[in-house]
Amino acid sequence: MEAVVYRGARTLEIESRVAEPPGRGQVAIEVAYTGICRTDLHIYHGDMDERVGPPAVIGHEMSGRVAATGDGVAGWGVGRAVTVMPASSCGRCRACQRGTYHICHAMNFLGIDAPGAMQSIWNVPAELLFPLPDALPLDHAALVEPVAVAVHDVRRARVAAGDYVVVVGGGPVGMLIATLSHHRGARVLVVEPNRFRRAVAQQIRLDTVDPATTDVASLVSNRTAGAGADIAFEVSGAASGVNTAVDVLTTRGRLVMVAVHPQPRPVDLHRFFWRELELFGARLYQRDDVAEAIRLVDAGAIPVQQLISKILPVDEVDAAFEALETGADVMKILLDWRGSV
Amino acid sequence: MEAVVYRGARTLEIESRVAEPPGRGQVAIEVAYTGICRTDLHIYHGDMDERVGPPAVIGHEMSGRVAATGDGVAGWGVGRAVTVMPASSCGRCRACQRGTYHICHAMNFLGIDAPGAMQSIWNVPAELLFPLPDALPLDHAALVEPVAVAVHDVRRARVAAGDYVVVVGGGPVGMLIATLSHHRGARVLVVEPNRFRRAVAQQIRLDTVDPATTDVASLVSNRTAGAGADIAFEVSGAASGVNTAVDVLTTRGRLVMVAVHPQPRPVDLHRFFWRELELFGARLYQRDDVAEAIRLVDAGAIPVQQLISKILPVDEVDAAFEALETGADVMKILLDWRGSV
Repeated sequence: MEAVVYRGARTLEIESRVAEPPGRGQVAIEVAYTGICRTDLHIYHGDMDERVGPPAVIGHEMSGRVAATGDGVAGWGVGRAVTVMPASSCGRCRACQRGTYHICHAMNFLGIDAPGAMQSIWNVPAELLFPLPDALPLDHAALVEPVAVAVHDVRRARVAAGDYVVVVGGGPVGMLIATLSHHRGARVLVVEPNRFRRAVAQQIRLDTVDPATTDVASLVSNRTAGAGADIAFEVSGAASGVNTAVDVLTTRGRLVMVAVHPQPRPVDLHRFFWRELELFGARLYQRDDVAEAIRLVDAGAIPVQQLISKILPVDEVDAAFEALETGADVMKILLDWRGSV
Repeated sequence: MEAVVYRGARTLEIESRVAEPPGRGQVAIEVAYTGICRTDLHIYHGDMDERVGPPAVIGHEMSGRVAATGDGVAGWGVGRAVTVMPASSCGRCRACQRGTYHICHAMNFLGIDAPGAMQSIWNVPAELLFPLPDALPLDHAALVEPVAVAVHDVRRARVAAGDYVVVVGGGPVGMLIATLSHHRGARVLVVEPNRFRRAVAQQIRLDTVDPATTDVASLVSNRTAGAGADIAFEVSGAASGVNTAVDVLTTRGRLVMVAVHPQPRPVDLHRFFWRELELFGARLYQRDDVAEAIRLVDAGAIPVQQLISKILPVDEVDAAFEALETGADVMKILLDWRGSV
């Protein structure tokens, strides 16, 4: 078997390893595709070394097939198409006990805190597996994890038909949030400075605007008869994105914080007071979100053709990370593991 | 009649005027007491001149008795004890149409946008009057407006029995929020650097801490078995207060923004993401909040003795503002208008 091993900032190595059999309660998955996300890129930059502890196998977006099962595992036949919810909760902390296990205080996240999906055979606890519909192509299924993020975000925002929704940041997750909001009957505007990403938004028939050339708050005001947006999603991670998301909102409008902001950002709290705005942090997903994401991908509700920019063989992993890092004209890149067992 | 007229920064004059009869739909109120709040202090500092447009009669916390009624007004007998909800909404904007008339886009706020309560005879639209119980002392009733603010804030936070609540800022509104949270069965901690205010908190049997000498987040963690606070109210208006309010919260904890922050503040948005925290702006009150405030004051649920530090005659208005401005050992100061008609 092969594995992509993160050894330190900007250093990935493809290693040949001997596959270990799955342990008790584990399933060995023959990985088909892994997606690369912004968190993987943060790790690649060396920003998460303390948590990741290189050398480490990263990756958490994937699809594959059951290759073998360990002791005590039933119900997972060899060859079954599966994906994995990579977030393993402790079950004991206050967050878990309240049912919000996705914000567990002692989260064990596969691909960060434990070995991830960028290996041709991946042993994972059986309880984290989700079966995939037989007819669902495995490259499409590799999008289930980011779709689950978007499902969670849209639920947290309580997007409803007729809402005006502004998505600040048109990367893969932003585009998925926009797509799902549109599905719920909302009018949607994607705010994105990158020309390529705006073109992708237009291909999937989403309204889009370049914040560098257009006053977004004025545009939203015009589109809503002066009222403002009901919901804004901050998915850009930029300080200016926070301001845009706050500025567009109507009275009692809801801002959902999806992006990671490593530094504190200046926030117009007076506007929160004055308009009784609301802010909701949104992180990861719960089991229902993953199940819903599988249903949506299987139903053809996700524009996978437009969102999967490239599928590269594993030995081009460096090129994949570099393309994402330089902000080249790509959305999601998948690594193809088939045949590398 | 007499009126306190704001003429520009730090300049108040007591003017003798001829009382005008109440116009159509208006009631003339013989004012008994007016409270001075932080907004009045902002006006006094000259920070709101554009909106206030001096010369202007300010003030919006009050109690009094009906002196006369204008044409088209029924049901308000002369001598009836009353208070006023000083926020007059347009009824037409999006906020009003949604039922959130207290965040009306075209709010006409008496004492800011229109003549206020610091006059011995005050003509106000009849629909803004609330009757007071006969036995309720009028000095106590002058607290109804700030109590209504606290009622609204506590409702917006959905404070429930067993919640751990942190109130950052122990001025009159903070103390009222703490009191009402305690009434709802919450455990309450008041964070306040001023020694006098902490002593007041202790007199009304609220737990209190000096953030200058104690790590508030650690204290809250200890008091909650490591979980953190369910709810934090930011009532201090200070940048450090925002940080404290964010830092103490448990997963999915709720931060209610009560204070006015004139500048954008650095906010740890990563913590909002990570813990799925929630932020709610809270402004003014609705009619139900005012009715509930009257009920609470009448029921003796508000520690009026500790909160009303001084009652001064109108001709000491300068001393009253100076005491509040210098942060002297005062909570609420009332002006006594009785006998100045």
